[in-house]
Amino acid sequence: MQWGGLMSGVSRFGVSIDSQLGKRFDEHIKRKGYSTRSEAIRDMIRDVLVEEQWESGKQETVGTITIVYNHHTRELDHALTDMQHQSYHQIISALHVHLDAHNCLEVLVVRGKSPEIKKISDRLIGTKGVKHGKLTMTTTGKELE
Amino acid sequence: MQWGGLMSGVSRFGVSIDSQLGKRFDEHIKRKGYSTRSEAIRDMIRDVLVEEQWESGKQETVGTITIVYNHHTRELDHALTDMQHQSYHQIISALHVHLDAHNCLEVLVVRGKSPEIKKISDRLIGTKGVKHGKLTMTTTGKELE
Amino acid sequence: MQWGGLMSGVSRFGVSIDSQLGKRFDEHIKRKGYSTRSEAIRDMIRDVLVEEQWESGKQETVGTITIVYNHHTRELDHALTDMQHQSYHQIISALHVHLDAHNCLEVLVVRGKSPEIKKISDRLIGTKGVKHGKLTMTTTGKELE
Amino acid sequence: MQWGGLMSGVSRFGVSIDSQLGKRFDEHIKRKGYSTRSEAIRDMIRDVLVEEQWESGKQETVGTITIVYNHHTRELDHALTDMQHQSYHQIISALHVHLDAHNCLEVLVVRGKSPEIKKISDRLIGTKGVKHGKLTMTTTGKELE
Repeated sequence: MQWGGLMSGVSRFGVSIDSQLGKRFDEHIKRKGYSTRSEAIRDMIRDVLVEEQWESGKQETVGTITIVYNHHTRELDHALTDMQHQSYHQIISALHVHLDAHNCLEVLVVRGKSPEIKKISDRLIGTKGVKHGKLTMTTTGKELE
Repeated sequence: MQWGGLMSGVSRFGVSIDSQLGKRFDEHIKRKGYSTRSEAIRDMIRDVLVEEQWESGKQETVGTITIVYNHHTRELDHALTDMQHQSYHQIISALHVHLDAHNCLEVLVVRGKSPEIKKISDRLIGTKGVKHGKLTMTTTGKELE
Repeated sequence: MQWGGLMSGVSRFGVSIDSQLGKRFDEHIKRKGYSTRSEAIRDMIRDVLVEEQWESGKQETVGTITIVYNHHTRELDHALTDMQHQSYHQIISALHVHLDAHNCLEVLVVRGKSPEIKKISDRLIGTKGVKHGKLTMTTTGKELE
Repeated sequence: MQWGGLMSGVSRFGVSIDSQLGKRFDEHIKRKGYSTRSEAIRDMIRDVLVEEQWESGKQETVGTITIVYNHHTRELDHALTDMQHQSYHQIISALHVHLDAHNCLEVLVVRGKSPEIKKISDRLIGTKGVKHGKLTMTTTGKELE
């Protein structure tokens, strides 16, 4: 389990918990498919740290922007292409899915500080022809072993 | 620390965590004002359990409905009073705050199954004159020691 | 409908919408209990403006902090009282509800800039003995007629 | 603007709004990059309809699952591959991004009823080695012109 290179190592701490609450937690992590309590708790910890990172806006982070749109809207196609080129330092990859004869889904993976990513997301979601758009806040994975 | 009556007791389990992640978690809980890791982790656990309870809709739970409105809107006053009486089994308490000469805030504490509470919340927030409204999902506190 | 005093007045604008989307919106607002489309749309508009206000952190705003706790935890009682006095400029009112023989719910109405309110909320929710806590972001109601 | 085929057409309705609120909305949509009020309002409408669709769980919908993980965790690689094959009816596409020498991001586009999509998401996010995961709820785009 040597994920983090030289700087890391595994430590261990104890959690005291009311037995009944512990039992309900065990049922929860079973439903969620976790194999151990530690794994579930590490996930919760990483989740709050990622949230803080996005709130602070100071560190580089990663987001995915999901948009669903009608591909007949030529105007949008151009806008998307232009914006992807203007922000090419931030947009590192894109996936395009044909949902049906009319509707497309596009996911962009964007890297940068959270205010920059939010700006790109607002612009894309606000483009005429985009039916639905969402920004998902995730992480570079660094310092989150 | 005998909160839960006869059924409870305190148990303890260990969490293994990458040292660097553990360090970042310690910084986080310090910023949040927690005195121990256990307390922070119990809060995270209760939080996901409350979320599940609200999603399932089967158990009795508690919510608070916060609305901000202009008290000159007489129509709203009547609507609020009527709805509080119609749903008096669910609405267990209310707090009224005068924010300024025009604006009032009202918080209602509502008890019931989550679909019932959501219905009351939708009706109140949808009443003409309500400027802003939010439903907060919390818990009866039972089984959450 | 003279809510806002001298500065206000009612204006009107048109929204063009695909007929099918319009029909689905009409069904939605009926389920939510709105009497007119305008009222539903004004609510959506106020909602995004309140969100922006909380993100910017520059203007005075209002939040409610809901906590559920076991009232036998004497330590918490003191902490709550102390914190309410320290932050008495911000905490403008409080409602206390006895949920059962053990569990209490308390809602605090807090006024200030969003970072200040978040700090108070973090401290209260992080206090030992608080089983569940949530911050609800609302508004002073000013400039939101 | 004939997006929706034979069933559709464009209709128009009026929104009455306090002038000051209207002015603040205009500033908001400018910041968000919208070219018209109608476009901003259609986006808000689609957003609440997508939320309802996910809550009801009855219609087919689309979600994206974003996970960040360490690619040295061989166990995870297998789990991901297995689960993508088991759920191949639902998982319609995937994008893989190398974030650095250790960290990968994967976005899966999943189609199905919301409870099915949530189940796949829980399983993936709960797999050992996944550092961060999020489910984004979007739409097939149908009936959302």
